[in-house]
Amino acid sequence: MRPVKTGFERLKLTIAYDGRRFRGWQSQASDDAVQDHLERALKKLVGERVVVHGAGRTDAGVHALGQIAHADVPAGKFPLRTWLLAINASLPPEVRVIRVQKAAANFHARFDAAGKIYAYRLWTGPVLHPLEIGRAWHVPVPLDFEVLRAGCELLSGTHDYAGFIVNRGQIEKDTVRTIHAIRISRRGPLVTLRFEGTGFLYKMVRVLVGSLVRCAQMKSPIEWLATTLKTKGAAKSHFTAPAEGLYLERVLY
Amino acid sequence: MRPVKTGFERLKLTIAYDGRRFRGWQSQASDDAVQDHLERALKKLVGERVVVHGAGRTDAGVHALGQIAHADVPAGKFPLRTWLLAINASLPPEVRVIRVQKAAANFHARFDAAGKIYAYRLWTGPVLHPLEIGRAWHVPVPLDFEVLRAGCELLSGTHDYAGFIVNRGQIEKDTVRTIHAIRISRRGPLVTLRFEGTGFLYKMVRVLVGSLVRCAQMKSPIEWLATTLKTKGAAKSHFTAPAEGLYLERVLY
Repeated sequence: MRPVKTGFERLKLTIAYDGRRFRGWQSQASDDAVQDHLERALKKLVGERVVVHGAGRTDAGVHALGQIAHADVPAGKFPLRTWLLAINASLPPEVRVIRVQKAAANFHARFDAAGKIYAYRLWTGPVLHPLEIGRAWHVPVPLDFEVLRAGCELLSGTHDYAGFIVNRGQIEKDTVRTIHAIRISRRGPLVTLRFEGTGFLYKMVRVLVGSLVRCAQMKSPIEWLATTLKTKGAAKSHFTAPAEGLYLERVLY
Repeated sequence: MRPVKTGFERLKLTIAYDGRRFRGWQSQASDDAVQDHLERALKKLVGERVVVHGAGRTDAGVHALGQIAHADVPAGKFPLRTWLLAINASLPPEVRVIRVQKAAANFHARFDAAGKIYAYRLWTGPVLHPLEIGRAWHVPVPLDFEVLRAGCELLSGTHDYAGFIVNRGQIEKDTVRTIHAIRISRRGPLVTLRFEGTGFLYKMVRVLVGSLVRCAQMKSPIEWLATTLKTKGAAKSHFTAPAEGLYLERVLY
């Protein structure tokens, strides 16, 4: 956690993006991750490389309403409002810095995050609304909401979630996390599951959603969720909901 | 108003579409209007040409949440649920029949319409949210809501709206319409203007919105709206809001 160099100041950026347009958050060889676009925009304004540290990665297709990042820029170069407009002027319209604030010298977008809220949108009508393409998962098979509620209850709390993640090459060491709540809201055929927790493992929200939907469609008994949780990764759920329904809604500090 | 031929039945279709994908509602040489796509899908199912009559035209870029159309199909060929799924199976995903009902033999989507509700979405924040691209008009200059409210009041009622339309080749003969109400709703930077009226002339809602926004930004005095209304087309407003913010929300019968 390096504090700001002399002559620099730390900015806290709140960022929204349409996940379909980018190869995820994290910088890649493709140069088409959200982080790549932000770093290029800042380099143009500052004249040298600026590293943008995000609160967490999102996969290709996953949207953000309130991703948080920090970056160090020459102190006093622009007022905050000018940073906002100038950075956006160099970004594709599908990603936008929606707020620029001055951060404390030792603020770190990732290490200081106390939690995150992810929303997952399901479209449960027989026909996917055309304005929901790429923005919700179309689940035309009816859901049992009693089962869905019971499943959300069961998966909340402090657990070893190793049965509900996708391993990236190596096995994750610490797979215990706390989900404070999984809340369900409904507006017509649109069902939103909102996950608030201390942190989430790779693809964890998508596997949880895929598994919950499977139970709510009566394709697996709800006991299977409890069993999978108990095995701590010896048995795994392989039902991953698609990226397009997932939104990083807020990072909590 | 021809009733159904013997051996046929009339269907009432409720249709939603993303206006960016199509060249408007009305059939064109391009064959890429919403009507073209619906007629092609029905021809595939029925084996002969089926005319789809819409409640009203929408321009390229204008969205629909509840466009209504009627079409005559061989009686008893499919149950309604099968029509719904079969028509959608032949359509691009950006247009969807969201409901199929059996209509009375003399129902006419256009002639029977008693009114329409159009919604116009404005994004008034300094930065256009990436998930609002193509779905709202970005109006970053602050609006005076007192003026906006007064303008909506002033433009409601029964008036000759010839000063707030775009002429298509010939001059429209009857330009008197009734707007029952123009309602304003706000949710953060999103402002929605909802027009409920007996009928709307070519580009009328977009010219009304463009003119209202101009006044609410203090670029024209509100008296200009009253004057333009009074001249009955001798003076015209040339401020047309872009298509992408406009939604045909509902057709009233």
